[in-house]
Amino acid sequence: MPNLIPATDLSAFVSRCLTACGMPEGDAAKVATLMTRADLMGQDGHGVFRLPMYVRRILAGGMNLTPSFALLQDRPASALVDGDNGMGHLVMQHATELAMEKARKTGVAWVGARQSNHAGPASLYAMLPAQENMIGLYLAVGSANHMPPWGGTDLLLSTNPIAVAVPALQFPPIVLDMATTVAAYGKVKTAAQRGEPMPEGWMIDRDGKPLTDPARAAEGFLLPIGGAKGYGLSLIFGILAGVLNGAAFGRDVVDFNADAETVTNTGQAILVLDIAAFTDPARFRADIDDVWRQMKSSERMTGVDEIRLPGERLHRVMAKRTADGIPLPGALQERLATLATELGVAPL
Amino acid sequence: MPNLIPATDLSAFVSRCLTACGMPEGDAAKVATLMTRADLMGQDGHGVFRLPMYVRRILAGGMNLTPSFALLQDRPASALVDGDNGMGHLVMQHATELAMEKARKTGVAWVGARQSNHAGPASLYAMLPAQENMIGLYLAVGSANHMPPWGGTDLLLSTNPIAVAVPALQFPPIVLDMATTVAAYGKVKTAAQRGEPMPEGWMIDRDGKPLTDPARAAEGFLLPIGGAKGYGLSLIFGILAGVLNGAAFGRDVVDFNADAETVTNTGQAILVLDIAAFTDPARFRADIDDVWRQMKSSERMTGVDEIRLPGERLHRVMAKRTADGIPLPGALQERLATLATELGVAPL
Repeated sequence: MPNLIPATDLSAFVSRCLTACGMPEGDAAKVATLMTRADLMGQDGHGVFRLPMYVRRILAGGMNLTPSFALLQDRPASALVDGDNGMGHLVMQHATELAMEKARKTGVAWVGARQSNHAGPASLYAMLPAQENMIGLYLAVGSANHMPPWGGTDLLLSTNPIAVAVPALQFPPIVLDMATTVAAYGKVKTAAQRGEPMPEGWMIDRDGKPLTDPARAAEGFLLPIGGAKGYGLSLIFGILAGVLNGAAFGRDVVDFNADAETVTNTGQAILVLDIAAFTDPARFRADIDDVWRQMKSSERMTGVDEIRLPGERLHRVMAKRTADGIPLPGALQERLATLATELGVAPL
Repeated sequence: MPNLIPATDLSAFVSRCLTACGMPEGDAAKVATLMTRADLMGQDGHGVFRLPMYVRRILAGGMNLTPSFALLQDRPASALVDGDNGMGHLVMQHATELAMEKARKTGVAWVGARQSNHAGPASLYAMLPAQENMIGLYLAVGSANHMPPWGGTDLLLSTNPIAVAVPALQFPPIVLDMATTVAAYGKVKTAAQRGEPMPEGWMIDRDGKPLTDPARAAEGFLLPIGGAKGYGLSLIFGILAGVLNGAAFGRDVVDFNADAETVTNTGQAILVLDIAAFTDPARFRADIDDVWRQMKSSERMTGVDEIRLPGERLHRVMAKRTADGIPLPGALQERLATLATELGVAPL
């Protein structure tokens, strides 16, 4: 039975650890808030689970604790941010706020980032505009290659995710957050952490046979959704979030799980649409309520209890974890306790 | 053995038919060029194959032959176009040109359309910006619902496609053009036209069993790619191309195959990124050449002859058909001959 940790405690702990590494307090608090939000949303593979890896990379000199963001390109509706190898959370919160500011004036804005790092779950950033009558769409180059091009065996592609958040009125925002692979690699890592086998269909080995032991993940490939289509989406999102920004893609992607020192030059991008540039936001949000109602009230196939909208589980988990606390598996708690000892900070 | 029709002959024939229906000559020529280009690209379900349906709808008064496009919303990087129930090809060529003009100034632009109609294959419009150092991304609400929400049985969603075109330098553009369903409904219609069975995995019936007879398509559902993920993509693309524009979505979508008279209020959207707003276009295009090379030179799985990039088949087919002519199956030629007789125009 995992312990339930209040979000404020978890956030304070993350902040302590990052500060102990030398990160300025304000930045540490921002990262801790976003990382804890990932856990609140149920994105277990992208929240505090990643803290030991982040710390390892920081201590190895692989991430810049005091980055200075540069605006390499700047047009009314677009920008290219150089994250100066800072934490991805800081880079992408900055990029998203910039895109929102631009979109308010121009209707739509796109901000790309290079020299960023792993930034947690894609939905974190897509959801920020949704709080202000805007639609957010986030793309990223995954932080390690686990997929070949369709038909190939060279690991040239990652899970390159997309997240889109669309605000409703009485219902919560619709939040799509998906890897272009059947499973995100974070899920593979969570399965490994828990010692649980993976379902068939997540990965194959080099002979094309199903691979279900997460401990053998390095021997195989993630499978794209829809075969060649998911390969195409991964490739295109990687181009838009990576190549266009001068960030790493293909052979240049650094496996940040295996290597703590090499600068990753991670690329991400955020698109923001200001709803008011298309229609009355209240009217639109009521229309999205209607989308909720139409989908939820569809007749169901035999054996299906409920039809869900993208993000529905996220909101339920967030409500529950905000009230009850965040469940941390025993193995993860032990890793965090060890980390606290190593950094000389108070444990959780 | 299908006859090979030169593109200029096919285009002239389409133009004759549309003009005979009462469409102004300039517009008929524009639509004929785009429809023929769809056939040149190998998009057999979205080119001249659709002409009889378009004509039926025009003659039934379901489409406006002399539309007047209105700019309902206009910001520096965004716009909402009312297509006045004109041919989708005209509406989306207009919207795409507008988005390109805006993106040149602002870096990025997004133009949505309402009161549009079926516009042919998604890649037609995504590829226009790619000719001018820009990236095009097109989304559309499909012209008939063939998919329920995941777990449901009410037909509330369509194949809602995405197309993205990215220019290279020595290589042709990378062109992703995909339905969010395993198969586009156009492919189902082509299979029905040809009297060929569909592979398992394209459709299921109401009991969840594979449906392979295209003549029974109306009894079943298209399957989304990646299960719930494809459902999510279809829903989100439908919101961005439909709901945001005040176009039809969900229960409001008119099945334009079954109904020739009701105004469809089709919604589409085009996003254009000006590469120069991010990096030097020549440098970027050389980087995309490198993406081609990396993917093509990957080691291959046993039994795989070649690794392809999205759009590679499209460019090969286009080169071949431009040189040799467009192959039209006998059944389609007969339909077009009948159409010519009905409209009193010279046959192909």
